Amino acid sequence: MSASSSHDTIRAVAFVDGALRLLDQRRLPAEETYLICTDADSVAAAIRDLVVRGAPAIGIAAAWGVVLEAARLAAAGHAPTLDQLEPAMRRLNAARPTAVNLAWALQRMRSVASRLSDDPLRDLTAEAQRIQDEDLAANRHMGELGAALIDSGSGVLTHCNTGSLATAGFGTALGVVRAGYSADRIARVYAGETRPWQQGARLTMWELKRDGIPAKLIADSAAAHLMKSGAVQWVIVGADRIAANGDTANKIGTYQLAISARHHGVKFMVVAPASTVDMQTADGSHIEIELRDPTELFGLGGARNVVDGADAWNPVFDVTPAGLIDALVTERGVIGQPDADKMRASFGAGR
Amino acid sequence: MSASSSHDTIRAVAFVDGALRLLDQRRLPAEETYLICTDADSVAAAIRDLVVRGAPAIGIAAAWGVVLEAARLAAAGHAPTLDQLEPAMRRLNAARPTAVNLAWALQRMRSVASRLSDDPLRDLTAEAQRIQDEDLAANRHMGELGAALIDSGSGVLTHCNTGSLATAGFGTALGVVRAGYSADRIARVYAGETRPWQQGARLTMWELKRDGIPAKLIADSAAAHLMKSGAVQWVIVGADRIAANGDTANKIGTYQLAISARHHGVKFMVVAPASTVDMQTADGSHIEIELRDPTELFGLGGARNVVDGADAWNPVFDVTPAGLIDALVTERGVIGQPDADKMRASFGAGR
Repeated sequence: MSASSSHDTIRAVAFVDGALRLLDQRRLPAEETYLICTDADSVAAAIRDLVVRGAPAIGIAAAWGVVLEAARLAAAGHAPTLDQLEPAMRRLNAARPTAVNLAWALQRMRSVASRLSDDPLRDLTAEAQRIQDEDLAANRHMGELGAALIDSGSGVLTHCNTGSLATAGFGTALGVVRAGYSADRIARVYAGETRPWQQGARLTMWELKRDGIPAKLIADSAAAHLMKSGAVQWVIVGADRIAANGDTANKIGTYQLAISARHHGVKFMVVAPASTVDMQTADGSHIEIELRDPTELFGLGGARNVVDGADAWNPVFDVTPAGLIDALVTERGVIGQPDADKMRASFGAGR
Repeated sequence: MSASSSHDTIRAVAFVDGALRLLDQRRLPAEETYLICTDADSVAAAIRDLVVRGAPAIGIAAAWGVVLEAARLAAAGHAPTLDQLEPAMRRLNAARPTAVNLAWALQRMRSVASRLSDDPLRDLTAEAQRIQDEDLAANRHMGELGAALIDSGSGVLTHCNTGSLATAGFGTALGVVRAGYSADRIARVYAGETRPWQQGARLTMWELKRDGIPAKLIADSAAAHLMKSGAVQWVIVGADRIAANGDTANKIGTYQLAISARHHGVKFMVVAPASTVDMQTADGSHIEIELRDPTELFGLGGARNVVDGADAWNPVFDVTPAGLIDALVTERGVIGQPDADKMRASFGAGR
């Protein structure tokens, strides 16, 4: 890992001096500023307002939100019991609907809260730290697993931001890019800009530049033309929720990339921690897709580019059917051509 | 045509009082301002700088550019002969590389210039006006032909801007939308925003709003998800160059839409005047694809959204193979599943 660690310097979520410090991703790449959250509601607001985004990072931030609520209760003279913590956990859970990691991280905190010792704050802090540390370790492991699938000298296309900014560090799909580039397997990196929020343009390009990995930005709609040119052999993406049959919800545009990849014989890899797998959801048709405000499509950087009175349809996730996925990489291993049987073998009937 | 004409009020290219008046499309939708060109080089600059865009509109503007050069020569006491006009025609031709209509319109002007009467300016003016009038008539005819293919109550997705702004008026693909909406065949219109220049967001949404056709904007990468939802039955696009086998060069992202459409059983229609057909180009592999400045991807509306020092790959056209096209509509009629034989039957061995 020594080579790849030189391409891994960014940490967007950190609990420091009793407060949650979040790199404000809305302001990148222009400014590198941090938001300090000292209570659960400000964490929920930060999740809702996209200060912090990326399914794993949202879960980690929410776990620290529970710690902040426990500290607030303790400071007010209340014992931070499960019942006392529940309202804040519900508000945190409601901040974003699609990512399952949020509910998963809160469930872990809930589980600890149901069996607290005489030092509840220490128990909850330890669990939040474990969630964070395990995510980083999982990402490094997935990076190695995913990179091993890639032939030397390959080009890859990624979508959205799945890197250190979206996780505890290193990243999921972008962790595979980090590991693959460090191991000289990946020779060319392309990033789709990812409308409407431009996570690829704003965040992935910033992150790769910062960590010394050369990359080229493309318009989302240039992906098929890129594939036809032969420049990429893999599309590598993250996930917000993976159903029991392997259907994968991820940032809008992922499904389209998978269709084009299959059309061109380009391989398609999904990289996500096991916490993203939702065995309670049978298939992608049951995944709620977040529809956001039409105005998010009406401009960029404050300049409005659409006629007054215009309407828009703005789904921000889509579902890629398992049949279009060549490899699903979690910290538990690689599943080739995922389906319900293979998923059950790796993840059981439920979590 | 009476119903559809109520959805047709915009004219972007007009020769008025001896000068070419161009609606400055770079400033839409915020401002409706006009640029007055009084010589050929300012027309070439307007084409290059995207004041006027859209393959048919570019050809019409270039034809008027030749008229302006003839007028300049006449005013300077030179007879506007073919040889005298040739340098300006070359500069006009070089303003954009992909659209064949530009070369086609200049070839028509060249042909007239090779057999001028004793009133060269009148001859050239008449030919430019014919090119413009024929384009409008062709668009109205294609609108009827294309609309007739669409079942009542259908939804359609279009890409880029192929409307009155891109032509002499009415539009090609957007002309089919106008005619189909007027005939109650089209019930839902979606427009892809069309990165990097946002012609769909900025121009098509403006044009449809202005002409009273309700439409919804989508991110380019939401197209496959839209198709899966069942909301659209046709994708309708224009063309910048159609090769002898039916392969079609059009705005970047068109190819990706065609792949997704085929994947979902959504039909794919290309609408373009016969002047877009280039029987000298055997297939799409011989079409030059314009690569533009990476910085066009680095922001929108003046705000830079990508880290300093970033690189990008910015092809602004792609080629959709004929095999993915269900209907090619020109003013000569409809070709289903175009191929080299059907193209030859309609367009001959050359033009």
